[in-house]
Amino acid sequence: MSEQDLAEKIKSGDRRALARGITLVESRREDHRLSAEKLLDLVMPRTGKSIRLGISGPPGVGKSTFIESFGQYLIDAGHKVAVLAIDPSSKISGGSILGDKTRMTELSRRKEAFIRPSPAGETLGGVARRTREALLLCEAAGFDVVIVETVGVGQSETAVAEMTDMFLLLLSPGGGDDLQGVKRGVMELADLLIVNKADGDLAAAAERTASDYAHALRLMHALHEDWQPSVVKCSALKGEGMAAVWDKVQAFRKATNKTGEFESRRRDQAKNGLWQEVSDGLLERLKSDPDLADRLAKLETKVAQRKASPAAAARSLLSSFFKGLGD
Amino acid sequence: MSEQDLAEKIKSGDRRALARGITLVESRREDHRLSAEKLLDLVMPRTGKSIRLGISGPPGVGKSTFIESFGQYLIDAGHKVAVLAIDPSSKISGGSILGDKTRMTELSRRKEAFIRPSPAGETLGGVARRTREALLLCEAAGFDVVIVETVGVGQSETAVAEMTDMFLLLLSPGGGDDLQGVKRGVMELADLLIVNKADGDLAAAAERTASDYAHALRLMHALHEDWQPSVVKCSALKGEGMAAVWDKVQAFRKATNKTGEFESRRRDQAKNGLWQEVSDGLLERLKSDPDLADRLAKLETKVAQRKASPAAAARSLLSSFFKGLGD
Repeated sequence: MSEQDLAEKIKSGDRRALARGITLVESRREDHRLSAEKLLDLVMPRTGKSIRLGISGPPGVGKSTFIESFGQYLIDAGHKVAVLAIDPSSKISGGSILGDKTRMTELSRRKEAFIRPSPAGETLGGVARRTREALLLCEAAGFDVVIVETVGVGQSETAVAEMTDMFLLLLSPGGGDDLQGVKRGVMELADLLIVNKADGDLAAAAERTASDYAHALRLMHALHEDWQPSVVKCSALKGEGMAAVWDKVQAFRKATNKTGEFESRRRDQAKNGLWQEVSDGLLERLKSDPDLADRLAKLETKVAQRKASPAAAARSLLSSFFKGLGD
Repeated sequence: MSEQDLAEKIKSGDRRALARGITLVESRREDHRLSAEKLLDLVMPRTGKSIRLGISGPPGVGKSTFIESFGQYLIDAGHKVAVLAIDPSSKISGGSILGDKTRMTELSRRKEAFIRPSPAGETLGGVARRTREALLLCEAAGFDVVIVETVGVGQSETAVAEMTDMFLLLLSPGGGDDLQGVKRGVMELADLLIVNKADGDLAAAAERTASDYAHALRLMHALHEDWQPSVVKCSALKGEGMAAVWDKVQAFRKATNKTGEFESRRRDQAKNGLWQEVSDGLLERLKSDPDLADRLAKLETKVAQRKASPAAAARSLLSSFFKGLGD
């Protein structure tokens, strides 16, 4: 199938074509890359028409249950929901536990839902790029809510925050001294905190946790001019609280659209994406230079042992690299 | 003066030589850069023998007063204290308000103190590199406490955190609803929170603020295995609480030395510094390529307007760049 045909099918909402397109952007083969880029070029005009939500939270907080519940709620309200994932520990495509259809069985059965496991990748940058491109394809296919979930390995939350409009952080009700296990740096990425499992025996604990976090949030400066992060409670298992979450999402969109921040943030993300790709490409080229491999390792060791300053070592590497290229 | 002579003087603790060495590393001239690198090579074995403290806080919190007070305390206790600064808004060297001797007059008079304003620089990366190198020179000159302060513009706190062992965040006593103005992302960098101005009328407010932040910290996962960030109070104006701060610093060093984390963190920082420099150098070379300048701007605009995907644009740029280099 030509890229044009595939693009047309995707734009008509054909889910199988979408899956195929995503497989194409995930491929490392050079010919596939070129094909994927043609495909993306063809669908770019149709992108941007969704709200992009990042979702993360500590293990055991109920991410899959939440996404299933939230996804169902959204579809019942007339939306089309795509769920993608970033899991840098996933060594083979489809091997990740995230975005696993078997954990979101009800949702995966609905035709207005599209669920895709994390792409594999050797670097977070590579995984992030593939997911960003998959997100664009989902938008072109008419999905108006795109969720990108992550499990919180390394810097994956930052990667997710940088490709989405709004970052949702799921939390469990905790006892007074329970460390939530919220990774440092993640809480401050969040635009909305959601305390899950607010039902039955844990209802009171959920209330206290929500209050604790609301209090902590007030101590921190807002990231957006017109949006102060807040906390809501829900019970994903019981399907309660989904409307409250969606209300917050819409309020966020409205507030940041009003100031123009919504669009300007997307523009900055796209530009940053460009420079990140350029940077990664340059570094990759340098690291794969056979003549440099040896010196690279030696210099890195010298720097780590404080026998050379980083800047001097860098200059030395760059000098050799560019000289080698000029030959 | 040759680099060898300058290095010898610096290692003997000569402050004027240190200042001269720092001016050398700050210079943009190519011949000065080469000279600076020789200098750094010569002093590297003498580096690493200090505790490196990053200090930040919202405007008005009393950073200068604190550093003056803390610096005096440390010198009285037998230490030698260097104070550097990162202020990316500083357009001319010496033009920044940070590290300004006139704001730390008492401290600047003591011979065991060395205070240096932020270097100027066009990019944060450039300013950070110069400051990192100045830090190494200070260590070589025998300063065993090196403070790097920043005012919180852009990502300067992250840059400071990445060149120091421990990050101290100064806070003011606040009313219940006062937004501290603690920039998002900064609170989670902190290893120690210090509520200043805990005296007189503000004593009770300081107590409440300290308690609030202590509570908030418990909600967040520790960054280091063996160190849970905490809160102390002080009154820089009255010189109270400096011992408590220093106790925490020493406890931090002890705890992280015990697990080996102190040293491994420094090694990682050095390695990251290397790759950051390499990345910056590569990107700088690409951006300064006259043949690419035009396309670069056009592609960035296309990407921002969603007319091209970041990855496709990046590939196009890289392809042209490497082709051009090969000629």
